[in-house]
Amino acid sequence: MSDKKYVYSFGGSLTEGTGAMKNLLGGKGANLAEMANIGLPVPPGFTVTTECCVDYFKNNSTRPAELEAQVEAALKLVEDAMGMKFGDSENPLLVSCRSGARSSMPGMMETVLNVGLSTATIPGLVAKTGNERFVYDAYRRLIMMYSDVVMEKAEGIEPAEGKAIRRQLDAMMEELKESKNYTSDTDLTVEDLKQLFADFKVRIKETLGCEFPDDARAQLWGGICAVLKSWNGKKAVAYRRIEGIPDDWGTAVNVQSMVFGNMGDTSATGVAFTRDPATGDNKFYGEWLINAQGEDVVAGTRTPNPLNKDTGNEHNRHLPSMEDLYPEIYKQLFDIRCKLEQHYHDMLDIEFTIQERKLFMLQCRVGKRTGTAALNMAMDMLEEGLIDEMTAVTRVAPTQLDELLHPILDAASEKNAELIAKGLPAGPGGAVGRIVFSSAEAVAAERRGEAVIMVREETNPEDVEGMRSATGILTARGGMTSHAALVCRGWGKCCIVGAGKLVINEVEKTMKIGGKVYTDNDIISINGTRGYVYAGRVDTVDSSENPKLRKFMALADKYRKLGVRANADTPEDAARAVAFGAEGIGLFRTEHMFYGKNSEQPLFYLRKMILSSTKEERVVALNELFPFVKENVKSTLEAMNGMPVTFRLLDPPLHEFVPSEPAKREALARELGIDAAAIAKRAEALHETNPMMGHRGVRLGVTYPEVSEMQMRAILEAAAEVGNCKPEIMIPVTCDVGEIKFQKKILSRVAEEVNAKYNTAIDYKVGTMIEIPRAALQADEMAKEAEFFSFGTNDLTQMTFGFSRDDIGAFLPEYMDNKILESDPFQTIDVNGVGRLIEFAVAGGRSTRSDLKIGICGEQGGEGKSVMFCHKAGLNYVSCSPFRVPVARLAAAQAAIADIQK
Amino acid sequence: MSDKKYVYSFGGSLTEGTGAMKNLLGGKGANLAEMANIGLPVPPGFTVTTECCVDYFKNNSTRPAELEAQVEAALKLVEDAMGMKFGDSENPLLVSCRSGARSSMPGMMETVLNVGLSTATIPGLVAKTGNERFVYDAYRRLIMMYSDVVMEKAEGIEPAEGKAIRRQLDAMMEELKESKNYTSDTDLTVEDLKQLFADFKVRIKETLGCEFPDDARAQLWGGICAVLKSWNGKKAVAYRRIEGIPDDWGTAVNVQSMVFGNMGDTSATGVAFTRDPATGDNKFYGEWLINAQGEDVVAGTRTPNPLNKDTGNEHNRHLPSMEDLYPEIYKQLFDIRCKLEQHYHDMLDIEFTIQERKLFMLQCRVGKRTGTAALNMAMDMLEEGLIDEMTAVTRVAPTQLDELLHPILDAASEKNAELIAKGLPAGPGGAVGRIVFSSAEAVAAERRGEAVIMVREETNPEDVEGMRSATGILTARGGMTSHAALVCRGWGKCCIVGAGKLVINEVEKTMKIGGKVYTDNDIISINGTRGYVYAGRVDTVDSSENPKLRKFMALADKYRKLGVRANADTPEDAARAVAFGAEGIGLFRTEHMFYGKNSEQPLFYLRKMILSSTKEERVVALNELFPFVKENVKSTLEAMNGMPVTFRLLDPPLHEFVPSEPAKREALARELGIDAAAIAKRAEALHETNPMMGHRGVRLGVTYPEVSEMQMRAILEAAAEVGNCKPEIMIPVTCDVGEIKFQKKILSRVAEEVNAKYNTAIDYKVGTMIEIPRAALQADEMAKEAEFFSFGTNDLTQMTFGFSRDDIGAFLPEYMDNKILESDPFQTIDVNGVGRLIEFAVAGGRSTRSDLKIGICGEQGGEGKSVMFCHKAGLNYVSCSPFRVPVARLAAAQAAIADIQK
Repeated sequence: MSDKKYVYSFGGSLTEGTGAMKNLLGGKGANLAEMANIGLPVPPGFTVTTECCVDYFKNNSTRPAELEAQVEAALKLVEDAMGMKFGDSENPLLVSCRSGARSSMPGMMETVLNVGLSTATIPGLVAKTGNERFVYDAYRRLIMMYSDVVMEKAEGIEPAEGKAIRRQLDAMMEELKESKNYTSDTDLTVEDLKQLFADFKVRIKETLGCEFPDDARAQLWGGICAVLKSWNGKKAVAYRRIEGIPDDWGTAVNVQSMVFGNMGDTSATGVAFTRDPATGDNKFYGEWLINAQGEDVVAGTRTPNPLNKDTGNEHNRHLPSMEDLYPEIYKQLFDIRCKLEQHYHDMLDIEFTIQERKLFMLQCRVGKRTGTAALNMAMDMLEEGLIDEMTAVTRVAPTQLDELLHPILDAASEKNAELIAKGLPAGPGGAVGRIVFSSAEAVAAERRGEAVIMVREETNPEDVEGMRSATGILTARGGMTSHAALVCRGWGKCCIVGAGKLVINEVEKTMKIGGKVYTDNDIISINGTRGYVYAGRVDTVDSSENPKLRKFMALADKYRKLGVRANADTPEDAARAVAFGAEGIGLFRTEHMFYGKNSEQPLFYLRKMILSSTKEERVVALNELFPFVKENVKSTLEAMNGMPVTFRLLDPPLHEFVPSEPAKREALARELGIDAAAIAKRAEALHETNPMMGHRGVRLGVTYPEVSEMQMRAILEAAAEVGNCKPEIMIPVTCDVGEIKFQKKILSRVAEEVNAKYNTAIDYKVGTMIEIPRAALQADEMAKEAEFFSFGTNDLTQMTFGFSRDDIGAFLPEYMDNKILESDPFQTIDVNGVGRLIEFAVAGGRSTRSDLKIGICGEQGGEGKSVMFCHKAGLNYVSCSPFRVPVARLAAAQAAIADIQK
Repeated sequence: MSDKKYVYSFGGSLTEGTGAMKNLLGGKGANLAEMANIGLPVPPGFTVTTECCVDYFKNNSTRPAELEAQVEAALKLVEDAMGMKFGDSENPLLVSCRSGARSSMPGMMETVLNVGLSTATIPGLVAKTGNERFVYDAYRRLIMMYSDVVMEKAEGIEPAEGKAIRRQLDAMMEELKESKNYTSDTDLTVEDLKQLFADFKVRIKETLGCEFPDDARAQLWGGICAVLKSWNGKKAVAYRRIEGIPDDWGTAVNVQSMVFGNMGDTSATGVAFTRDPATGDNKFYGEWLINAQGEDVVAGTRTPNPLNKDTGNEHNRHLPSMEDLYPEIYKQLFDIRCKLEQHYHDMLDIEFTIQERKLFMLQCRVGKRTGTAALNMAMDMLEEGLIDEMTAVTRVAPTQLDELLHPILDAASEKNAELIAKGLPAGPGGAVGRIVFSSAEAVAAERRGEAVIMVREETNPEDVEGMRSATGILTARGGMTSHAALVCRGWGKCCIVGAGKLVINEVEKTMKIGGKVYTDNDIISINGTRGYVYAGRVDTVDSSENPKLRKFMALADKYRKLGVRANADTPEDAARAVAFGAEGIGLFRTEHMFYGKNSEQPLFYLRKMILSSTKEERVVALNELFPFVKENVKSTLEAMNGMPVTFRLLDPPLHEFVPSEPAKREALARELGIDAAAIAKRAEALHETNPMMGHRGVRLGVTYPEVSEMQMRAILEAAAEVGNCKPEIMIPVTCDVGEIKFQKKILSRVAEEVNAKYNTAIDYKVGTMIEIPRAALQADEMAKEAEFFSFGTNDLTQMTFGFSRDDIGAFLPEYMDNKILESDPFQTIDVNGVGRLIEFAVAGGRSTRSDLKIGICGEQGGEGKSVMFCHKAGLNYVSCSPFRVPVARLAAAQAAIADIQK
């Protein structure tokens, strides 16, 4: 037997824990101890540690041998404090058993109340309270809860749909109420309840094959073990997977003496937030119910009363507030609220019970909040002197920023709107507009200045222009990594994908949902943060001009060490990037001028180049293309006004630019004055088995040095003409330093020529993407030639895992379901694999060039955890889509603060 | 000025170098010094070091300042030894200037002879020799050589085709001979030669714009610098690229007093090998020419005489041998031959000159030899006590083994055969057979026991069965990495690809070459080692029963540390592997039973499984497939007789097994009783953008665990039934330890069931391929679950470089041409990238499992340099195709010996 301490007392005469012991006591247990320590009225009890839970599962679901004695000792302290005895026939103590993990997992684990009621203790409690009905109602609750949570769930029985014991007992009670024409549970008489217990017990025996335990200690151990077991219940496991909570943390069990909010009209129970969790307003915000137990407040069966005037709304304004009804108790609670905020320096979520006019604090924890509330509270508390700057910066999660950066649906307006479908929340914010069914309509509408929602079965690359033009995107098919989701997340555009209920007919321009048909005459509204689709117009709110947000971001920048740049491909993107606080462009994709607006002419010359059969023809086409590329570069450099811009040389395989449809090929052939068969032949020659690992990036620059040369010349001439700018030329898809040498040879010559032509000395840099594993492995060599590295984590992740992003749909879901991978490596940098390569490359690169500038320009550059990794790995900057720049700034600041606080 | 010693004297009164100084003096210079040191008659001279060459290029093609004084001093020593004076009018010394790098680069660099002849020195030499014609002929040679090598080439002039000075002078001499009706150069009279000089000098002035130098010292410096410069000549650079010789080695220059083999009939010159370089026979083997200079022997203008009776052949048997004509000098030469072999312990290639009955040794170096000769000499010299065992093992290059392991064309028979085409030597050895134009014909012929050569435009996977059946393969298209080349190299099958002259009509069954038509009635012979195609039947020789080879390989195994296994997929392959000395099977590809012979039935069930739409259907098909898989495993285990066999679970993406042709799909649909459209639909669903990085390997095992289960059960049941065997189950395409855990869970259950069924305890291992970069990066974690690693270097190279092997044809040639990559990473392990990953994984894996068994099973497992890398990296074994097993054994032995000798 070990000497582990598995049980910590709190309240009463002894409190052994503190608020800092969350890992061991769970959040709830630590806070109960902390509340007791600061003198709040906490019903006495004890916490069984998370370590006990871990040992329980290690030990084949058997409780540690030493647990029993420790529980008995702690129970004795509770009995002493309460002046009652557990299982006693005269003055019986009742307790609750509640779960409490390190990190809140609301509703995911189990709770049993009123433990200790039995045929032996009921008469004593009735005598003591003089309230027979209260006692029998408590017993009813115990039976219903215990049979479900302890007996059925804990035994691992998986009853058929509708056969769960809880549903059966619920149905029995409803039947009884109906037969007697009762409308409320409180109408049940003592005799009704007695009959119900008897029937319940028979049904439990029939259904579960064993008796409901009539012994207090049996109930207690059943309750404790049920909570422990619920850590590995289906719901809890699924929740942990989503929230990224490790399986080996375990839950604590809090056993606490019961106090009753349902002992008549001078008893009550309630929940409150020390400030408004939706808006962050500094108002005490809560709800309470008279003559009720805690579960009644959250169950929604009765409308709870408002705590005070501030909390009133249209649903509860008519009900008496505590402030009015029990002003003294309200005053006590309000003082506790202030004491708690002063103690915890944060907004708290509290639960309380009033038992016959006596206030008890049952729980207190840091309250969940919306992004808006998080921001407002952080800045308010900073101003109030409750927290310091660094704390304020850490109070908003990077993911919460999304909500603050996009127009959103007005909450009140949304509440009243008609919800017609749900899908996956693929792009944040809210959007309202007329339905359109094609890219062309969306483009036309934008030209007219009309807001539209583009509705499609799913989107493909040819829809991109329409997607840009639309205010929001809604698709019937596709998941979180579908084309629409990827594109919209990158742009920060409101988008819902995979709304399966939609039946879309793009030809007839109809969208059917259930029986109802919507056409392009209809307006809809979508909430891309939640994935909700509404009929008609819902009001929107623009949060971008929020002065608190500006102050907050300035504060973040004050602590941030990592640079933040944007990936931008057009002058408009560049301007947006600057507006969002980008300090330069980390990735300008040269090829983007061949997509979207005004791309016809350059795309034509590019295709002419690709379809050339000799170097001479190719050079002619390149010369025709040159002015377009130069102009594109020039306007971007101008938009960035002296900030650095990283131009990546042509990256995609050439076949991407050759049209695949026969009609388009014929048209192109006519324009070029060549045979359509020649196009087909060239396209066939360009076809690749694995285009991801084919003839692209610098490999094009090696086989067609003239293509690199044209781009380099365009960049340098543009730079010379703009003046005062910092162009950085980036070579993609390298795997060996020889490639960089080869390209630099061309660049040196071109630079000499351009410098001579303009009689200047352009201040340019040359560097490389690190997106092929070998480039990372050879980083020491690469850095001898490259002045900067930029990790292309999209491709690096593909190659490192051998995962083709286009093809992972066939197996990645199973990898996540079976917990083979903890998270999608394309969302968050895979620290253990890709991260090792990055660290290796950083060390290697700096070993041969100490002032090597290192950044990242994959999608993960705008994801919080990945940004924190980049900070730790010692990168100089991250680059991400303009809309993610604030997220990156905040994550970088938090990483820097974590360093300071370490 | 530095104090570098750039000049080393040899011969005469002072020899400063030794044979060990090859890096500084070059091979020739070091050997001249060594010969002088052991008392052989070497004409005195000096060597300008390779360091001088390096400094020359570093210093912008300027010779070091201190060189002149050092050359003058050394020249003085030569003059003293010879009793002659360079540039003297009475007793003039003539010298030669020859290149000599560390490693032999025959014919790639320049030589100038007779340096020092000028209008000033000619009369003295004529007076001294009394042979005016000899002197003038020497002068003619000097002018022709010098104008070409020193004046034209060294100036970097690139004359138009036919305008090269050498060609012009040759033409002038031919014209003169024709005008006088001379048949031989020796017909030219003194007067003719005098006229020729005058004309030559005019033409040189006209063509090159400068005078032929008439000063001995000017000639000397011109000669020295021309040799230095020739290190960076086009030919030399190209040769170095092919042979992998570093550019910064530089060449030495050997300046040596001239001795003349063309001073009349008592003078001669010759070349010899101390043993027969073709067969290795212990016979002194050489050729000589009376009254000739060295260049005449190799030029082929005159048929050289045999050195002795042993050297006689049909072409020279009628000519007098030295043994007969000058028995005393022959005796002296024979003694030198023996002295040299005793000194160098190897077969040497020597050059000598007899000047008026006096023998001089001009050169000596280790002689090149065929694989057969290398083997025979190694074993003979070991027996003679000339070398020890370890030296013997290192005397055959692993690449030379190829030649010894395949039937080859008989050299004599080949010499007389009609060469009709050339192609790329894709598969080694020789093959003879009737032409067939299809896979089916080849299969039919094999059944009849007839040898055929399969001739195709190019091959594809559907030809594989025919390729197996044919004796040799010949294709008109494709390179060294084409399908035919890859398949045949793996099998060790004789194959020529890319024979561009062939025009093949597979329908009419004709092969046209030039004007001639060959049909399936014709026999051809192919030499796959050289890439030569012959009309008719050439005799073949089978070397596989060579007893010397068996002894040699046993010797290699004695020193080898690395295990060698074979990749084998059938019981026949397994038997062959054992015959070639494999110690187990390192890679058994489960899927190979679905290709080739007897594959119809299992392939049908596999397809049925793939086309199943539910797990239940899939399990039915898997149960039908099970007995075939089990039988296949069983017969392989039996063939291996207790040696370990690594079974790799299903690897390729499933779409590879769904037929693509509509007719085949329809037939399959009929057999399966489903709709052809359903097949098309499933095939479409299985289609992948980048199949290399798609749904394959363990990813199939995760999504269809029942597929893994069936294979595991088949392997374990087979093992239980065979008994006394060591099955190793290998999981492919892993990237995370979670995948291994997932598969092991299935395996443990299956093993328990099988052990119970057979009442046994099967001795199996489970391990993983390391072929995804992340698997290497996570090796420490992987090894916690895997008992062995096997590096799949084919895929690992693809992912590490981001090179799709199917698509590299578009750019890899340019990478090689531009020296961005030094060698094809799919041929030889890329030590700097893939190698770093391997080393990382070995260290990581052993850090968590010290007895981890590590192997490699990519194609490089049978390539010499790669095997040496594997030895250094501390692997336990390599696995390669059966035919490469001896190569791997030898390379492993040489690596181990290098370790000992370090």
